[in-house]
Amino acid sequence: MKFMNQLSIVKVGGKIVESLNLLQTFLKDFARISGFKILIHGGGTTATQIAEKLGIESQMVDGRRITDPETLKVVTMVYAGLVNKNIVAQLQAINLDAVGLTGADMNLMFAAKRPVGQVDYGWVGDIREVNAPALKYLLEQNYLPVLAPITHDGKGQLLNTNADTIACEIAKALAYDFNVRLIYCFEKKGVLHDEKDENSVIPNLNKEQFLQYKEDGIIHAGMIPKLDNAFGAIAAGVKEVIITRASDIHSGNGTYIK
Amino acid sequence: MKFMNQLSIVKVGGKIVESLNLLQTFLKDFARISGFKILIHGGGTTATQIAEKLGIESQMVDGRRITDPETLKVVTMVYAGLVNKNIVAQLQAINLDAVGLTGADMNLMFAAKRPVGQVDYGWVGDIREVNAPALKYLLEQNYLPVLAPITHDGKGQLLNTNADTIACEIAKALAYDFNVRLIYCFEKKGVLHDEKDENSVIPNLNKEQFLQYKEDGIIHAGMIPKLDNAFGAIAAGVKEVIITRASDIHSGNGTYIK
Repeated sequence: MKFMNQLSIVKVGGKIVESLNLLQTFLKDFARISGFKILIHGGGTTATQIAEKLGIESQMVDGRRITDPETLKVVTMVYAGLVNKNIVAQLQAINLDAVGLTGADMNLMFAAKRPVGQVDYGWVGDIREVNAPALKYLLEQNYLPVLAPITHDGKGQLLNTNADTIACEIAKALAYDFNVRLIYCFEKKGVLHDEKDENSVIPNLNKEQFLQYKEDGIIHAGMIPKLDNAFGAIAAGVKEVIITRASDIHSGNGTYIK
Repeated sequence: MKFMNQLSIVKVGGKIVESLNLLQTFLKDFARISGFKILIHGGGTTATQIAEKLGIESQMVDGRRITDPETLKVVTMVYAGLVNKNIVAQLQAINLDAVGLTGADMNLMFAAKRPVGQVDYGWVGDIREVNAPALKYLLEQNYLPVLAPITHDGKGQLLNTNADTIACEIAKALAYDFNVRLIYCFEKKGVLHDEKDENSVIPNLNKEQFLQYKEDGIIHAGMIPKLDNAFGAIAAGVKEVIITRASDIHSGNGTYIK
């Protein structure tokens, strides 16, 4: 059996990236994860707020932002600029040698504009290829990649890509070279058995159980694409997917998917 | 004598980074420069425009922006996000494997907040150390660093640093390992003998001539810090500094400083 190093890929978003205090606390916890690490972040509501101030209306369909040219500018500014560089500076302050990147940098994530179907998502990119050798290379040089949810099409066009999906695709692409653990930091404690009961976390979930829960209507709505992603990652060789609260990444609490 | 590779460090700003057409034309010229390359960009007037739209007043003293906390957010968004990532995507489109970075990334440029003197410049950073090994390393891996004029203080604080100064400091730091040529792309054809005559470019300038021109009042105002930087670079081992128009980088026109 090939020896493979441990790699934790952590996706964080929401309130954590909007509050300096929450971010600093989270990054200290994140720093304590042993082995290689990659951090992937969303932009929280900052992009929406900045867009509003600039007089750009944010259109959402099924929780996904419609990315018109003006919105693309805003998400590029907020995700790749403000949020990404603040995270990098905070990581440097605790001696983690972070490097903040988008999919255009080093051609890390090559994407295709989503075809117009029933919905025209605008400048949204679906990942076609992850540059695993470049990421592996950075990790081996002890850099900590911090990835913003912006990709490119190789023809000069930046694209907006969902951060959850990026985390999943990066995990899959690196599963050949590392023992990958994918951690989704979530606002809730994990996947809930009863939506109204914060403490009804399903501690372990396999594919069979997921399909059953889905059939029974226990797991639904926004959780389904997240879990489809998770099981897709497992099928591609990712060792474990964890859905938990940012404050719980060392606690063993949350939903563990294998 | 130690063999050293050729490295061209090009600083571009102003209108070039604000117009996609001008940028694409410039980047094609830039791509034709042989040897190793680093691109350093300013933000043009986009930061001022975005700040205005967000209701943030841009205060300038002697051509330098006063960086209050809100302005720092804007320059981080515009320089490190919008401008940097668009340049990177355009370079990838012409098969240059660019990586867009600030001083916080890989701890490339460590700076100290400028002390408050007669003017409080706010969150402005003066470079204390350039991480030459990290830049050298990227170059040797055939990556093209694209640097935004944002630095950090190592304690989590991002800082706004003049792009001309960054170009100069990077050139000095890499002069031990490369034959460095520093090219300042400028709105004018070069250093002018007569400000009112666009064609009165001084083709060659050495330190003695510079001091004489300065004494005679021929070179003054905004050109003086630029040339002080240039002669500082030469003194630190940079082989040549060229001040020229972006469209003239292959023409041999401009002011050549040795």
